[in-house]
Amino acid sequence: MTKSPRARDIGLQFDGTPGPLNAITDVAGITVGFSTVIEDPIAGVHNGLCTGVTAIIPRGASGDIEPVWAGIHSFNGNGELTGSHHIKDLGWFMGPVMLTNSHSVGIVSHATVGWMIARYPEVFAKDHMWCLPVVGETYDGALNDINARGVTEAHALQSLNTAATGPVSEGNVGGGTGMITYEFKGGTGTASRRVEIAGKSYDLGVLVQANHGTRDWLEISGVPVGRLMRDDLVAPSDLGSIIVVIATDAPLLPHQLDRLARRGGLGIGRNGTKGGHSSGDIFLAFSTANPQKNPWYAPDIMLLEALKDTHLDPLFAAAVQATEEAVVNAMIAATDRIAVKPKGKVVRAIDHQRLMEVIRAYRRT
Amino acid sequence: MTKSPRARDIGLQFDGTPGPLNAITDVAGITVGFSTVIEDPIAGVHNGLCTGVTAIIPRGASGDIEPVWAGIHSFNGNGELTGSHHIKDLGWFMGPVMLTNSHSVGIVSHATVGWMIARYPEVFAKDHMWCLPVVGETYDGALNDINARGVTEAHALQSLNTAATGPVSEGNVGGGTGMITYEFKGGTGTASRRVEIAGKSYDLGVLVQANHGTRDWLEISGVPVGRLMRDDLVAPSDLGSIIVVIATDAPLLPHQLDRLARRGGLGIGRNGTKGGHSSGDIFLAFSTANPQKNPWYAPDIMLLEALKDTHLDPLFAAAVQATEEAVVNAMIAATDRIAVKPKGKVVRAIDHQRLMEVIRAYRRT
Amino acid sequence: MTKSPRARDIGLQFDGTPGPLNAITDVAGITVGFSTVIEDPIAGVHNGLCTGVTAIIPRGASGDIEPVWAGIHSFNGNGELTGSHHIKDLGWFMGPVMLTNSHSVGIVSHATVGWMIARYPEVFAKDHMWCLPVVGETYDGALNDINARGVTEAHALQSLNTAATGPVSEGNVGGGTGMITYEFKGGTGTASRRVEIAGKSYDLGVLVQANHGTRDWLEISGVPVGRLMRDDLVAPSDLGSIIVVIATDAPLLPHQLDRLARRGGLGIGRNGTKGGHSSGDIFLAFSTANPQKNPWYAPDIMLLEALKDTHLDPLFAAAVQATEEAVVNAMIAATDRIAVKPKGKVVRAIDHQRLMEVIRAYRRT
Amino acid sequence: MTKSPRARDIGLQFDGTPGPLNAITDVAGITVGFSTVIEDPIAGVHNGLCTGVTAIIPRGASGDIEPVWAGIHSFNGNGELTGSHHIKDLGWFMGPVMLTNSHSVGIVSHATVGWMIARYPEVFAKDHMWCLPVVGETYDGALNDINARGVTEAHALQSLNTAATGPVSEGNVGGGTGMITYEFKGGTGTASRRVEIAGKSYDLGVLVQANHGTRDWLEISGVPVGRLMRDDLVAPSDLGSIIVVIATDAPLLPHQLDRLARRGGLGIGRNGTKGGHSSGDIFLAFSTANPQKNPWYAPDIMLLEALKDTHLDPLFAAAVQATEEAVVNAMIAATDRIAVKPKGKVVRAIDHQRLMEVIRAYRRT
Repeated sequence: MTKSPRARDIGLQFDGTPGPLNAITDVAGITVGFSTVIEDPIAGVHNGLCTGVTAIIPRGASGDIEPVWAGIHSFNGNGELTGSHHIKDLGWFMGPVMLTNSHSVGIVSHATVGWMIARYPEVFAKDHMWCLPVVGETYDGALNDINARGVTEAHALQSLNTAATGPVSEGNVGGGTGMITYEFKGGTGTASRRVEIAGKSYDLGVLVQANHGTRDWLEISGVPVGRLMRDDLVAPSDLGSIIVVIATDAPLLPHQLDRLARRGGLGIGRNGTKGGHSSGDIFLAFSTANPQKNPWYAPDIMLLEALKDTHLDPLFAAAVQATEEAVVNAMIAATDRIAVKPKGKVVRAIDHQRLMEVIRAYRRT
Repeated sequence: MTKSPRARDIGLQFDGTPGPLNAITDVAGITVGFSTVIEDPIAGVHNGLCTGVTAIIPRGASGDIEPVWAGIHSFNGNGELTGSHHIKDLGWFMGPVMLTNSHSVGIVSHATVGWMIARYPEVFAKDHMWCLPVVGETYDGALNDINARGVTEAHALQSLNTAATGPVSEGNVGGGTGMITYEFKGGTGTASRRVEIAGKSYDLGVLVQANHGTRDWLEISGVPVGRLMRDDLVAPSDLGSIIVVIATDAPLLPHQLDRLARRGGLGIGRNGTKGGHSSGDIFLAFSTANPQKNPWYAPDIMLLEALKDTHLDPLFAAAVQATEEAVVNAMIAATDRIAVKPKGKVVRAIDHQRLMEVIRAYRRT
Repeated sequence: MTKSPRARDIGLQFDGTPGPLNAITDVAGITVGFSTVIEDPIAGVHNGLCTGVTAIIPRGASGDIEPVWAGIHSFNGNGELTGSHHIKDLGWFMGPVMLTNSHSVGIVSHATVGWMIARYPEVFAKDHMWCLPVVGETYDGALNDINARGVTEAHALQSLNTAATGPVSEGNVGGGTGMITYEFKGGTGTASRRVEIAGKSYDLGVLVQANHGTRDWLEISGVPVGRLMRDDLVAPSDLGSIIVVIATDAPLLPHQLDRLARRGGLGIGRNGTKGGHSSGDIFLAFSTANPQKNPWYAPDIMLLEALKDTHLDPLFAAAVQATEEAVVNAMIAATDRIAVKPKGKVVRAIDHQRLMEVIRAYRRT
Repeated sequence: MTKSPRARDIGLQFDGTPGPLNAITDVAGITVGFSTVIEDPIAGVHNGLCTGVTAIIPRGASGDIEPVWAGIHSFNGNGELTGSHHIKDLGWFMGPVMLTNSHSVGIVSHATVGWMIARYPEVFAKDHMWCLPVVGETYDGALNDINARGVTEAHALQSLNTAATGPVSEGNVGGGTGMITYEFKGGTGTASRRVEIAGKSYDLGVLVQANHGTRDWLEISGVPVGRLMRDDLVAPSDLGSIIVVIATDAPLLPHQLDRLARRGGLGIGRNGTKGGHSSGDIFLAFSTANPQKNPWYAPDIMLLEALKDTHLDPLFAAAVQATEEAVVNAMIAATDRIAVKPKGKVVRAIDHQRLMEVIRAYRRT
């Protein structure tokens, strides 16, 4: 993994208590892998690639095909997260969550089907099991020649095959490589929270692919940073998107996970977004608790644990907090990139020193 | 209860195996009560009342305040079923399901709040418990002076206080008193199915308040009855609605109950409806399994049973079959009424003998 | 109307440009009325009433029965807004939007049906028109003997019959009388924004009934006020709710209004809420543009204006900003109340002077 | 195109008046293309391919990139139709609707992105336009070695590049090649209706990829055909899916198209399905009326026509009728295939002569 500075490293503060890694991988069993695709222009082929693929495998550590219970919310539907009909109706999904650029959803989905079949040959060969991958996207056409469709099946497989537990790379990595956040360079970010509920400890982790917001909206720690840091503006309107993946080991039912997913909106709102029309803001929540066999092999009557409703608030707060921090982490870890459209435009990472001056001026450290 | 003929009594046949009562009360613990409001015109007060209230109390037999897990589907939203936000998000509701005419939803809701507070004084007095009743409606303005708002708080309480297990009245009774179905007199109908799943027996019961459809759409047992029985047509377009309440003792989670509720559409479709614009076709499904304390008093971690997905099909089929039969039962039990608007128009119950002649002519007995 | 101080009066600042009244009534044609019900305890009847009813009449100034196009979002469904099935499916509603306490939804709905029938006698008498009122609620059981069901039909009619254009009362008024916001006294609040889009000016107004949040979540102008003002805490968890009504004269279609409603979540998020489980956070958006006859009398083919998608962002931002300000206005206008449960507990309005000291200390003025 | 017998050719009757082609292409401007992929087994590569791709291009005749207004309903979410978030939120989509097998959604999506970029180079090259294709699927793993992922980008392009107006092939063609319907060979089917509304004539066309149902459920013309034709049963439970695409030139807004899509459930219900758990039953409706530039190039204020609500019933009925007929057409046109899993199992097309004997025996001709 690439070690980049994180928001807390430069002095930013957030509410709540993170897990040991402050990453989605604090939820036991989850692995994350990346394929980062950066290529100089090749005449007649593409004008420069700056993109990639992120793989989040909920049961990556065990390798089991067991589904995870899940919920979803499309706060702003100008985007894509495939697999949603299945999740909404059945309340679970199998296999990984893949994130990439808008024009690579198809090839990444194709690769994921192949990977699943190869990984669980006995299941797919023996039974009529189908695979409907979960693939999300945000648009990187400013920094990446997105129309060249440069992501390949091999890239997707690389992200899947390198997925690991432990610390998670951030910034210009994987699906987040070519992303822009509040007109600063953005990308992949992660964070986590550990909460105590009725004497038990639960982890909740978030991974975002952050590509949303206009500069004037940007707030960090309650400070209107975007109005105070006006250099290197990129575009006059919100053209991006954000995918928020929320994972937890707390035992939640699908309808509770729908509710948890919906809190993603409050999370991204904390950095000032107004949910611009052109942004696809889609949130997925899943729980690794209640491991069940695939429905075909599950017991006739499943026995599930579920936190009672009035215990949800710490998890709701954790989702909001970790989403907020993950977005800022994406920006803090990111590094400058030069655009392919408009050609030569520099998209700057946020200046850490200047940011902290602003934050301190408003006494928010 | 009023004993009226039922569809099977006159020779009609349906798929699936009903429970002992062929009624929603085959699901253990459910009680049903009615208040039927029929009054001659009173000058200056109303032009004639022909309406009422139906109360379905999921935990009526035990009297417990325990919620039931629930799901909902609004197939055609030109109607009302209050309490839906709560059911959709939390997956459960407390207290009864009330059915009445469109303009009496408010007073019935008001009465239900009072009834709940009086019934569970320690809960409402001690804690900050709130009550958001589930009240559905269909429009009876042809047979009832609906604008006189003749249903009172006392009527609603009567339906609640007389709710009982056992056989359920049908036709011109309770909320169904003034209803019209496929231009025949309609009303309240019920039916049930018993299914075996993995060695266990489950009951599923349906109660409908049927007020929908145009004559030419009507099919019974696959026969286009509505084209063959053309007397006493009422209105050229679908102005009605139907509320379908599906109850089961099978252990289903809220998201599974959403799916079950959605099958209500297939059920009403079997009698030929096209889902006319003016019809509010709203379906509620609940499970009496997994009794839980109110969330405030539930254990920190609830332990719930849930049928595995691939076992749902018998319940889906049961919901479709019981809904179809409940609609026909409503029509078979109903008796003629004279309209208040247009004044004097006779709304005839379907002629049993003529119906069976038609059915037999098409070899569907 | 009652003149109370507003957030801007005491020096707070917000983004965006308000309309002349900085109220929902900046949207031409809307009238707002209140019935405030405050009564000392009466032995054997109630332990003290502190509640009321708010009426927002979209076409109040003209008195027309014409529907308004509408959208809805249930961010947190632990609450009620009746009429939602109709709005979701048909995209419009007729008549007023009523707000009251949780246990008075029924009686207010009942009253509203009566008011509509009386107001448009020719429509309801002549045709089979039905009325399914839009009634929202939040819970005031701490300050009001909510189980006494003290709101009457007359109270609801009073709010409807006194509805007027012009400035709008805030704080302890109407449905907001007994509300608590972030553990300060809350209530009714309003605000508006005027935006320019493609050379035209549009108004967007918000009215909230704010009853949500825990103290530690509270932020104002980005400052963590709730951690700095710790006196007179009320309850350890979020037990409230908030209804957000967003009105505009911009020509938006129902699906666009759904999107606008969803931005209510970002709006309330700006003051720090995490969307606690017990809170019913439901948002309604409507547009007074494209006045249409009731569908029955509408032209065969309606001709509708609709802003193009990429012009929505100023309205989205306006909805977020006005919602944020309306919540703060509700708190600033509110005055202390003594609870009925727990009896004698004082719920304080936020101290304006102390608040501004905190805000200034963080340089946010 | 392949000329196969159709339901009406063998004497079956349906309600409503079809358009000239009784096909989705009766809606002016729509083109349909197929790529049918049938290959004998190749050792080490695949065990036999029997699959394909169907392309429906709403603005195929004009070639314009103009979006169509659209709505969607997921009756049973155990399937996939990508592009749904966009359709649900924005109410429109650009480009084709693609149908294929479950494991080829990704490659077909990938191909469609490439096709769109190549077809509209100035739009994608000049602006930051993104493409999120609409791709649906049903599972053909019994007749096709679905895990071999035999559909290629070239196949998808072939379906797009051969799309034409005029009659539409049915049965074992395109995405429907390997489908099974009520345990008979199924596949692609289409039908249409022409309706008169307020003096104007509108076309509504349906195309289905039918792969659903168990034999015992099957009804045709109200006759329980599936209980009377028991030869060559395939599987004991519903393992399939059905995608229903409903097109019309009637001017409908997105929320009205959502309602139209929902009627797909009544349409498939007419042949007896209970909506089995394993079936992904997803319905898409679009209107070619109100052609609008892509939102970026649309006028600031769009002017849209919309049929008034009370005129929707003929279209609702047309959607139900055409869906029913399209499913039967798929079965009538289909021809026998031999399964790859279980190897050698013959999946028979329904015997036309025997079917008509059954139908006539019940007097339904």
